[in-house]
Amino acid sequence: MDKQAPTAVGVDFGGTSIKLGVCRGAALLEVDDPIPTQGHRGPEDLIRVIADRVARLRTKHPEIGAIGVGVPGLVDFDRGFIHVLTNVPGWNHIPLRKILGDMSGLPVVVENDANAMAYAEWRHGSAQGLKNVVALTLGTGVGGGLVLNNELYRGSHFSAGEIGQMSIDFDGVSGHYGNLGALEKYMGNNQIAEHAVRRYAQAGLHREVAQCMPKAIADAAHAGDDIARQIWGEVADWLGTALASIAWLLNPDAFVIGGGVAQAGRLLFDPLEARVKSMISTVVWEGLRILPAKFSNEAGIIGNAALAADALP
Amino acid sequence: MDKQAPTAVGVDFGGTSIKLGVCRGAALLEVDDPIPTQGHRGPEDLIRVIADRVARLRTKHPEIGAIGVGVPGLVDFDRGFIHVLTNVPGWNHIPLRKILGDMSGLPVVVENDANAMAYAEWRHGSAQGLKNVVALTLGTGVGGGLVLNNELYRGSHFSAGEIGQMSIDFDGVSGHYGNLGALEKYMGNNQIAEHAVRRYAQAGLHREVAQCMPKAIADAAHAGDDIARQIWGEVADWLGTALASIAWLLNPDAFVIGGGVAQAGRLLFDPLEARVKSMISTVVWEGLRILPAKFSNEAGIIGNAALAADALP
Repeated sequence: MDKQAPTAVGVDFGGTSIKLGVCRGAALLEVDDPIPTQGHRGPEDLIRVIADRVARLRTKHPEIGAIGVGVPGLVDFDRGFIHVLTNVPGWNHIPLRKILGDMSGLPVVVENDANAMAYAEWRHGSAQGLKNVVALTLGTGVGGGLVLNNELYRGSHFSAGEIGQMSIDFDGVSGHYGNLGALEKYMGNNQIAEHAVRRYAQAGLHREVAQCMPKAIADAAHAGDDIARQIWGEVADWLGTALASIAWLLNPDAFVIGGGVAQAGRLLFDPLEARVKSMISTVVWEGLRILPAKFSNEAGIIGNAALAADALP
Repeated sequence: MDKQAPTAVGVDFGGTSIKLGVCRGAALLEVDDPIPTQGHRGPEDLIRVIADRVARLRTKHPEIGAIGVGVPGLVDFDRGFIHVLTNVPGWNHIPLRKILGDMSGLPVVVENDANAMAYAEWRHGSAQGLKNVVALTLGTGVGGGLVLNNELYRGSHFSAGEIGQMSIDFDGVSGHYGNLGALEKYMGNNQIAEHAVRRYAQAGLHREVAQCMPKAIADAAHAGDDIARQIWGEVADWLGTALASIAWLLNPDAFVIGGGVAQAGRLLFDPLEARVKSMISTVVWEGLRILPAKFSNEAGIIGNAALAADALP
């Protein structure tokens, strides 16, 4: 009899809510109610709530053997230590593996959320079985994670994969770190909307930013709006330039692209493929796939559970 | 008694000449006369000349146990097969490992030249002992090689490390592959010279391109020429933008920079460090070194010999 894949809890720790689920291999057995991230007395109280939830899940799934937690910030994976969560007040210098491990009695891994998403897609998603994979999440910002030589690549100080901070213009607009031309300052959710407002204004049309979020621009393009379609072409030029640079540097098997902005589908992927192809050599292009992500909201749960399960001896 | 490091021949195969040397570990025991690359009846004849040279070197160094060859083009490292050497007519689809191995009776490895340079700096040079290293050669073009997680990273089709093709401007000048904003189209030798001619012209000064090659611009800057110094600042902005993007993506321990343009020394490295620091986070910057290469002309010999020696069982 084959050994059954281990069962683990995946915890997707966001700035607003914390999602939990139970996975066995690629199978998502159960998703629990989300926990609000705010309104606790401090990190230890919130970790206690998570531990209680895990204990409850274990009464239904006694085979749970590990917990994986993905967080939006800088993590020391080897120690399971959170350095800082940018958008979650009070979450600095938290030895999460130690605290949650002690409370739950289970082994715990702690990972950056974009890395967990990349791991989900490589382990169980669109990029399964590929050796070198670059995963991106397109939303308010642009996040990324790398699997190189069949392993999550974290960099020398656990900071690799920050694709949104890469520059597409040495003389461009300033990013969060003073980094001129930062990709996410062009194609973050809000930046796309602001760009669309300007494009419509050039055509003598008044639009509010709230009317121009990526979903609305995709709907307009589908309805035959030429300006909206051109906007997706421009987004593809920005993103495609960054992907071409990454392809030259890493010669990967695949890009996997998820997140809200990627919901535009072929409106984005068609001009994106054309742009990338136009900027790289035949050898690099022919070995390359540009894939929509398989997972969306559940990517964090699945990726973190897989990381935890795969870390078991 | 410690086992002595293996001895190997390193062959640096260039478009004009082929350099050979004998290395034991980091020690370059002997450099042979170069072989002209052109003027042979075909690849097999030239490989025969290399094999004869190796045979002669073995009479003096009978402990030679392997040959490493670095070539300017696309190589299948696993098979020791040359797909194409862009600037060497007739060198397409050459099973170099097989031919040279049969002629010499020695194990042969074949590598891309920029990868061999990166390996030399990581194994025996400025970046020795570091886990994640990005090496660059700045000359007519901009070449690169990556060591990630203590291994040469070659990518899915042996095409990784092409830093000169990365874009620093999504709307910039067109590179060799139609890649807009290709770094080497800004800071290749000749592009620096052409840029300098324009900069002097803006100041009402006439200069010929031949007077404005990087060495001359460095000499002028050292002699107090403000325009020349500004040009190095601009080169640093272009290169620094690319390095910052790579730092965000890979979070390496070091960049190692060699090649003729890097001979400008602090004229280039001072503004380069400032530019990179201004574009990345504290965590990524504090873990990062920007190092001049240890090796120059001999990098290829040392790197290829090291690759061959390290591949021995």
